[in-house]
This record gives sequence, structure tokens and C-alpha cells, in this order.
Amino acid sequence: MSATADKIETDVQAYMVQLGSQARSAARVLAAASPAAKNKALLQMADAIEASAEQLVAANKKDLEAGRKNGLSDALLDRLELTPARIEAMATGLRQVAGLPDPVGEISDMAFQDSGLQIGRMRVPLGVIGIIYESRPNVTADAAALCLKSGNAAILRGGSEAIHSNRAIAICIQDGLAAADLPVQAIQVVETTDRAAVGQMITMPEYVDVIIPRGGKGLIERISQEARVPVIKHLDGICHVYIDEFADRDKAVRVSFNAKTQRYGTCNTLETLLVHQDVAADILPELFEQYRQAGVELRGCQRSCELDSAISKATEEDWDTEYLAPVLSIRIVDNLDQAIDHIELHGSHHTDAIITENLHNSQRFLREVDSSSVMVNASTRFADGFEYGLGAEIGISTDKLHARGPVGLEGLTSLKYIVIGDGHTRS
Amino acid sequence: MSATADKIETDVQAYMVQLGSQARSAARVLAAASPAAKNKALLQMADAIEASAEQLVAANKKDLEAGRKNGLSDALLDRLELTPARIEAMATGLRQVAGLPDPVGEISDMAFQDSGLQIGRMRVPLGVIGIIYESRPNVTADAAALCLKSGNAAILRGGSEAIHSNRAIAICIQDGLAAADLPVQAIQVVETTDRAAVGQMITMPEYVDVIIPRGGKGLIERISQEARVPVIKHLDGICHVYIDEFADRDKAVRVSFNAKTQRYGTCNTLETLLVHQDVAADILPELFEQYRQAGVELRGCQRSCELDSAISKATEEDWDTEYLAPVLSIRIVDNLDQAIDHIELHGSHHTDAIITENLHNSQRFLREVDSSSVMVNASTRFADGFEYGLGAEIGISTDKLHARGPVGLEGLTSLKYIVIGDGHTRS
Repeated sequence: MSATADKIETDVQAYMVQLGSQARSAARVLAAASPAAKNKALLQMADAIEASAEQLVAANKKDLEAGRKNGLSDALLDRLELTPARIEAMATGLRQVAGLPDPVGEISDMAFQDSGLQIGRMRVPLGVIGIIYESRPNVTADAAALCLKSGNAAILRGGSEAIHSNRAIAICIQDGLAAADLPVQAIQVVETTDRAAVGQMITMPEYVDVIIPRGGKGLIERISQEARVPVIKHLDGICHVYIDEFADRDKAVRVSFNAKTQRYGTCNTLETLLVHQDVAADILPELFEQYRQAGVELRGCQRSCELDSAISKATEEDWDTEYLAPVLSIRIVDNLDQAIDHIELHGSHHTDAIITENLHNSQRFLREVDSSSVMVNASTRFADGFEYGLGAEIGISTDKLHARGPVGLEGLTSLKYIVIGDGHTRS
Repeated sequence: MSATADKIETDVQAYMVQLGSQARSAARVLAAASPAAKNKALLQMADAIEASAEQLVAANKKDLEAGRKNGLSDALLDRLELTPARIEAMATGLRQVAGLPDPVGEISDMAFQDSGLQIGRMRVPLGVIGIIYESRPNVTADAAALCLKSGNAAILRGGSEAIHSNRAIAICIQDGLAAADLPVQAIQVVETTDRAAVGQMITMPEYVDVIIPRGGKGLIERISQEARVPVIKHLDGICHVYIDEFADRDKAVRVSFNAKTQRYGTCNTLETLLVHQDVAADILPELFEQYRQAGVELRGCQRSCELDSAISKATEEDWDTEYLAPVLSIRIVDNLDQAIDHIELHGSHHTDAIITENLHNSQRFLREVDSSSVMVNASTRFADGFEYGLGAEIGISTDKLHARGPVGLEGLTSLKYIVIGDGHTRS
């Protein structure tokens, strides 16, 4: 370990304060940077990543070797790996973000008030964004791109298992910033693996405006508890599909099957299926058959078990569980009200869908289900920044304030009021 | 003290949990309530307040007597008093809020994506809002109106010095809710003066979605420190006017004088005047004369003191002080950059104005000053929800996330995604 790195390890707090203070200075420059400069940096980063593919793979190899030595699971090792395809995907991602409309400086709602003042709102960066994430090194490039494009400085704190990969990506990022004459400290990768760095980063509101943690629920809860800075949170996704009495049978089967089985480990995957009692006997047997063929374990309420004796009985805990696995809980409900009650009581306000051809019921569901995404006749798996047309996504927020649902560039900005007068005074 | 009140004092935590749980249930009903029902409730509240004027004055008398006994200052006693005019103003405020457009259920940005899904956003209530405030009893009616109109349940915790007045107003509020068949627990006034109620209220995220504290900086900082719930904060207003080298002389004098003297104790009052060095000698003497006639104490930088020997020297502390009093600090700066640097270093990101006829400088100021309101050729005193056309205001946020600047009905809502498909599945 170099003398510098040694110093870093022995004085994490001072190191983080230094990063913070540098980020705060860079943020002011970035907020006023032209779209052309920001895009030039992004495109240069993409080129640098492609040109450094060999170095990235070599750095990544060190992480993989250390990971194997430390007994990381195959799943984690897979997430950690930088293949040529993944390196290319990082570069493509950077170029895509360069191609998005620049949100900074956009003025809306500008109108004259009775006083004669023209008053509106301008979209501006938040300032300095701290991102805390785990094994995937590609997050380093993705997060850098979104923060830069939205005019924010960023402090990126990846997992210690990816430190060599992240440092190598950081060099490409610095390259891009320098090529566009932007401050290289606009995007900083935390170079220490000391866990105290996180504790420091989330408690310096003078330097960091918002923290976005990406990782497991445990990490996010811990950070939220300890942060002295606003946190954009992504907690669990206990998502529901409710098959209404007025559902189209085919759509119900198709959507419910897709929402559970298209991918098991994602936050927008269906975890509990609710079915109106009048259509359960007609629709569920076919669905159960499909789920079983796909290897999904079924756990049902009393009435579901009566329909199909092979289903195991769901416990109270099942309704509150995000399986992230080929397991599904099923409940037959009396009516729409009971479905909404169930979702409000057991859901996580992430994504919930109704299958119905009835306008009134669809409207009630859209209005009354208090989730970040509420859907009609569509698979919950669509809850995603790309599908929503945001062009990119830094995460999905389960918060109600500020950003709710998939967070793209807009969620990394705020609206300030601007007022134009001509010597106006208040009387 | 009644047996009920006694029980309340001995078990504040359980009492607050009960209020919270009732609010949570009421919030679901309120979120789905029709505009007609909400407006009926508001109009009935206004009628009830007018009809109960005598009872309100009698209850208020008890508070005033207790306040005098407890040695409240004349200023606080004045804020506490409910005069017939103030009672009428509460009723008028309720009727005005009834007349505002209903924000709930408003759909925006609805568009087809490549998948064929129609995706947009719906404005929805936040849920349960906790408001913590000090002496003015009229806040009880104002806050109730804004929360109800925006479809939120509210828990209102006023100052102990206003408890009788607030209870009397609460009766009118309950009257209005009952008349419109809305749950009376939608708006609850905390009936205990025990300070532990606040501690409990800000640490029950299961029942309260956001806390809005209204009061001094000390109160707000304490609540922000201890809250386990998002807080919409209003900290200090260290506001600046910068007189640019291209300022119109008359506008500069008029606006700078108004921004300081129109009211001294408000958050949007000018506290530090910055002046470009090339126009200082031309503009400042007249301004100083006007300020002195108005009784404003002037504290200046070295160069200001050289211009006018009667000015006392400002200390470093002055630049960081929100006087809320007839005191003004003045600094002559080299150029626009130094002015912006000063504002970024010493300001509180509340409201700052430039006086200039120069387009480029005005655009730079609007873009680069990171405050909730940025103005050109207008008095900072205009930073206010009514002046901005919001129709009403629950406070001014100095936060960057969620609501920034004056907070009206929109700040009490969030946007959720809505997705309409026709059996769409993700591949």
C-alpha cells in the first residue's frame, strides 16, 4: 500500500472532508457548465472506457481474485465481473446519457402575477450527491453520468470488493472531465475501503446535499437511520397484482405470470397475487399450472388451498415478505375494497397493478392505491426508468417526498423560484 | 383537570399513537374524498368560526390571562390574541382555500411509450402531515385548510400558550368535517401541552409522513435533529440585494430600501446589501440617508465606512447574521463574481436579488445563485406564497429536496406514476 493510501486509512474523516470540500467547489462550476461541456466529458469518458478495456479487465481480475479468496458467492462474483460486453455497455450508457435533453436551467410556469412580477421556476442541480453502492462496478460509470448530466458533483462510494475496478473506471471519468475543462473533482471515487468513510459521508450536510444508497434493505435502513443528510431511499418491493371480477381472463393470466416469472430477484416482481372470489375458480387453475411448470412455489390463503390441495398454506408473514425468489403468495378476496385494504396493509408502496376491464374499478385502484407506480392491465415488471421514458435511472424511490418511483435526471434536480421585476417594491 | 386530560398527561406516548393511528385511517378516506366534500367542510368551518366568535374570544382570553401571568412579552401576547378582525381573517382564509383548484388526482405528462403503455403521473396527498407551531392560533385554521384541501390528514400541535384558543378552533374544524361527512379525525389538534407529545409525533413514521415545524430556528433545528420522519424545514433567511454596476439608480434605491424597511421581522427581509464598487459612491449616500431616516443601523465593510464615516464597521459575524431587526450590513464588492461568492458563502439560500439592466449579468445571477428564490429588479419581500400565486402558504422551505421556497398545496402532495396497459407483459 502506498504512503498516500496509508495516510488515507489513518485519517478517514479528514479525507472525506477533503473530498466533500472539493466536491462543493466543483459543484458550483458544474451547475453553471454548458450542456456542450458536460456532453463532451461524457463522450470522452465513453471513449476512455473503451480504450482502457484491457486495464479495466486487469483491475477487475484483482477484485475477482480477492473475492474468490474471501469466499464471495458465485452470484456476487458474477455481479462483480467486468466482461468485454459489460465494459461496452458502460460506454454505451454514457453516450446515451449524453444524448438526453439537459434538464438544468429549464424554466417552467413563468407567468405574470397581479403585482406585475413575472414568476416561474428554474430547474437546478441539487449540488453534491453521495452514492453508496455495492458490488457492481458499472454503477460507478452510470452514477457518474447521471450526476454530471444533471449538473451535480458526486462522491461515489462503491463496495470494497470492487475497489480496483472502481479506481480504474475513475481514471476514465477523470479523463473525460479534464478533456472538457471541467473540474476533475466533480466526480470523485472514494479511494479507501474503510467503512468509516460511509459514516462520515452521510453526516456532513455542509458538503453533501443528498445520499442515494443502492443495495440491500439492511444497508439502506442503516444509512437512513444514521444520515444527517436527506436520503433518497429504495426499500422493499412487495408488489401485488389484483385480478378484478371484471378482468379479461387472458390478460389476467398473461400479466400475472409475467409479473412473477420474468425475473425473480427484482424489486418490481410480483410477490402476492390477489384474486376476486367470483373469478378465482375460473382463472386460478390455469395460472397455478403455469406457475408450477415454471417452478414457482405457491402459498395460498384458505380459499386458495381449497381450490387446489397441492398449495401450501400461507402464513401472516407471507403477506409481508419480499421473496425475491420463485415463491408466490395468493389470496382470494371478496371485492376491490378488500384488495386495496390488503395492499395498503401489507404492500410496500412500490408497484401494484389491477387487471380489469371496468373503468370505475380501474379509476378507484389508480386513485386509492398509494404506491409509487400504480398500473392497469400491465405487468409490474414495467416499473423502471427506461420503460418510463426517463432515459436512465439512478434507482427507484419508495419515498413519498421529492422523487417517487424510478429516479432519472429530474430526481437529481430541484426547482427554484425565479422572479423578474422592473424595480418592484412591496407595499 | 378532567380525568381524561389526566390520563392524557400520564400516557402521552399512547395518546400520540392513538392520534397517529386515527389520522392514518382518516387519511385514506380523505385521499379519495371529492373536491365538493372537502370544500363543503372548509366553508362550514368558516361559518362555524364566525358563529363561534364569542367562544373563541373567551377561550383566547384564558390564554392571554395565563400568558400575562407567565410573563409573556407584549410581542408574544400580541401574536396570541384573537381579535374580531383576526377571527374574520381565519374565516376568510378558509373560504379562499375552498376556492383554490383541487390539486388531488391531477394527471400530467401522460404519454405513450415504445412498449405501447400509457405512462404519466398523478398528484396525490402525502398522507398524514404533522404541524408543530408556536403562539399564533390562526395557524390552526390555516394549516387545517391547506392539509384538508390537499387531501391530507393532519395532526396539529400548537404552542401550550395557545391551548384554549386552539381547542376552541378545533371544535369549529370538527364541525366542518362532520357537516361534509368526512372523518372528524382527519384534522386533530393535540390536546396535551406535554412536550413529550412532540418527541413522539416526530418519531412515528408509521403514522406521520412529514413534519412541518413553524417557529424559531432553535425549534426547527431540534426537530430536524430528532425526527425519524421527513421534515420540511424553514431555517434562516439571510437575504441579499446586489446592486450591479449596470443597475438603474432609482430602481436600486427603491428596491434596496423596500427590501430592508417594509418589514423588519420577516424571513425575506434584506439583511446584507452588496454594491458594485463602480456605482457605490453614486448610489449609497442617498440610500444611507433614507435608511437613517427610517432608523436603520448601518454596519459596513472597510470601503463603505470610508464612504460614510458614521457607519460602524461590520464584523465577520455580521455577514452570517439574520438580524430580523432594523440593522443592515453593507459590503462594496469588486464585481458580480465576488457578489455571488459572498452570497454562496454567507447566505442561507432563501431569497436573493440583483438590481441590473444588463441581461447577461441578470442571467448569470438567476442561474448561479443557489437560493429558493432568485430575483431581478424586485424586492426580496415578494418571496411569499400569496405573491407567487400559490393562493396560500404553509411556510417557506429552505430545503432543496421536495418543496423549495414558498410551500402551497402542491408541496403537500407528491406525484406517483400511473401506467395504463392492455395486458402488456415485459419481455
